[in-house]
Amino acid sequence: MLRDDVERIALLTDFGVGPYVGQLHLLLASQAGDRPVVDLIHDLPPFRPDLAAYLLPALLRDLPPACLHLCVVDPGVGGRRDALLVRADRHWLIGPDNGLLTLVARGAKQRRAWRLDWRPPWLSDSFHGRDLFVPLAVRALCGEPIGAEPVDLESLAGAAWPEERAQIIYQDHYGNLMTALRAEGFSTRRRIRAGGQTLRHARTFCEVPPGEAFWYANAFGLVELAVNQGRAAEVLGLDVGDPVEVLADASGG
Amino acid sequence: MLRDDVERIALLTDFGVGPYVGQLHLLLASQAGDRPVVDLIHDLPPFRPDLAAYLLPALLRDLPPACLHLCVVDPGVGGRRDALLVRADRHWLIGPDNGLLTLVARGAKQRRAWRLDWRPPWLSDSFHGRDLFVPLAVRALCGEPIGAEPVDLESLAGAAWPEERAQIIYQDHYGNLMTALRAEGFSTRRRIRAGGQTLRHARTFCEVPPGEAFWYANAFGLVELAVNQGRAAEVLGLDVGDPVEVLADASGG
Amino acid sequence: MLRDDVERIALLTDFGVGPYVGQLHLLLASQAGDRPVVDLIHDLPPFRPDLAAYLLPALLRDLPPACLHLCVVDPGVGGRRDALLVRADRHWLIGPDNGLLTLVARGAKQRRAWRLDWRPPWLSDSFHGRDLFVPLAVRALCGEPIGAEPVDLESLAGAAWPEERAQIIYQDHYGNLMTALRAEGFSTRRRIRAGGQTLRHARTFCEVPPGEAFWYANAFGLVELAVNQGRAAEVLGLDVGDPVEVLADASGG
Repeated sequence: MLRDDVERIALLTDFGVGPYVGQLHLLLASQAGDRPVVDLIHDLPPFRPDLAAYLLPALLRDLPPACLHLCVVDPGVGGRRDALLVRADRHWLIGPDNGLLTLVARGAKQRRAWRLDWRPPWLSDSFHGRDLFVPLAVRALCGEPIGAEPVDLESLAGAAWPEERAQIIYQDHYGNLMTALRAEGFSTRRRIRAGGQTLRHARTFCEVPPGEAFWYANAFGLVELAVNQGRAAEVLGLDVGDPVEVLADASGG
Repeated sequence: MLRDDVERIALLTDFGVGPYVGQLHLLLASQAGDRPVVDLIHDLPPFRPDLAAYLLPALLRDLPPACLHLCVVDPGVGGRRDALLVRADRHWLIGPDNGLLTLVARGAKQRRAWRLDWRPPWLSDSFHGRDLFVPLAVRALCGEPIGAEPVDLESLAGAAWPEERAQIIYQDHYGNLMTALRAEGFSTRRRIRAGGQTLRHARTFCEVPPGEAFWYANAFGLVELAVNQGRAAEVLGLDVGDPVEVLADASGG
Repeated sequence: MLRDDVERIALLTDFGVGPYVGQLHLLLASQAGDRPVVDLIHDLPPFRPDLAAYLLPALLRDLPPACLHLCVVDPGVGGRRDALLVRADRHWLIGPDNGLLTLVARGAKQRRAWRLDWRPPWLSDSFHGRDLFVPLAVRALCGEPIGAEPVDLESLAGAAWPEERAQIIYQDHYGNLMTALRAEGFSTRRRIRAGGQTLRHARTFCEVPPGEAFWYANAFGLVELAVNQGRAAEVLGLDVGDPVEVLADASGG
């Protein structure tokens, strides 16, 4: 099923720059057939599946189907958690059962999840991306058994997390700050209190004076704090994990 | 024409590390056939097409033909500018009409430019790399109409820019500083005044004592400021965008 | 021989972020057939083949065979050194004769090395990765002559280097510090003195309290200094190149 449906593989990790991502690529290049392997994101908030979980559905929203997303953000390296396979509409995902995949699954119309019981003969303590999740992905892509047991979404880690959070979940290359608030249905009259400032909405960067902080609906469908020709993270003194406050609608709504 | 001539795709952006580049890759992997997609550079000076424009011809000088270069550096996200297709000798380029492609076009022997009028049904305000330029590239590669209207190079943004500039346009990983001065024809007797120091020419790093700043002709054909076993950007206290001064030739020439 | 045996290419450099890696990719994409080209690591310690040499065998230990590893770390840009081809068990490597490949070769059961005398008609002074090593790799992959002369491993640069070193050779994205000490056979009762602290062994991060420094056997088989939920480089105030001290075994062994 997965074998016939997956045409390409994407990697989503907190591995950053360094030797870890390349190892996944080389193993997949030699074992996953001719499917292209793409780096989707490697600077997910380190060790914070509770934040990355809110970014994943946004990242995947406009991407093509038939992709297996290999996702690794682990809070305690060497800790215990199960491995999961998730079907979320047009996407497949493999990753740890620590909440990382829960919101993607929950937000999909067609969704299924399986706990994966197969384990390789040897498994390092600290590099499960290479030693567990890649082998699981390769076996799944080859149609070999991975010990998949259907599980209820309600039983996954993070099942009780809210749909949205007034919190910074990602800082991009330009210093823009993404929140876990969905832009759809979020009134443009609302103001956001963050870093001691009150931010109003603008449609684009060009609509505010240089240096002014504002919020806008980003291209992933999230509420994002930004500064025209500046770095919001520095202007507002905020970092990933910090909360923001949504003020009551200016119209009283 | 472009469809038959392009064997691979290169990405040139100021997107840096993060989720933006991966989105381009996934879309191209699913829509642009089996052509390889290569990251050529993603740390072009942010928001500065006027500087990146001088780097592009240098980067492309020794690269193989039959490549479509997808270029995105946008000064004001969400602002207005046309989309261009450029043929510059052996290379194809797609990008915004904000000067970014102008010097590559102007420096080519065989050169043509087209304004692209086709627009996708939906277009985000802030991620035209994904939502406009990738769809344009995909349609061009598939031989579908993109509303290409030939335009005169003289009408492009940046058409009045000089051929060279005594200015830092890029700082590399090692702290070396590239200028927009072409090394070819630049006398090795010339000295450059930068960061309060007067730099003489050396052919290679090994020719000067450790810690000494010098200029040399880099592998892209640009005049570059460097320090043997040191970081020129820090030694000279200079940054991208800063000017340098070319002193009169020591021989009076 | 090499032509039939190599199915993919890996890049290992100190080039970091920027335009250098992309140039290698574009040239290989156009000249090396359909073989996948993978970025294995690009933040090897800059200019330090003497440190990178100890990381390479660890990086390659668990990787699939039939790969040509193109390796570039050059101490003095523009300096003189020969080019080498190395066969180390299941791996092929091309790189400079400055010690970078010596420990990989020495650690292999089946090993051979050749000095490569072919030179391209034109060769830049400062970008031998693109202008020398890629052309050599392409010719080798095409079965064209590269002037390969068998050489004795004892004649290579770095031939006198020890098998291990009590020294930091790499800092990863999380601030963990890898040493040139092999974990296999390194008693877990041993303690390591580093940055003014005495570190004991733990099997995983979870086994020590948050903020505490320890050493463990990393997934590459090296002794690595780490801090649970912290950055060892900052906690210990150590950097790449710094020495560590292995204390006498607590049991007196």
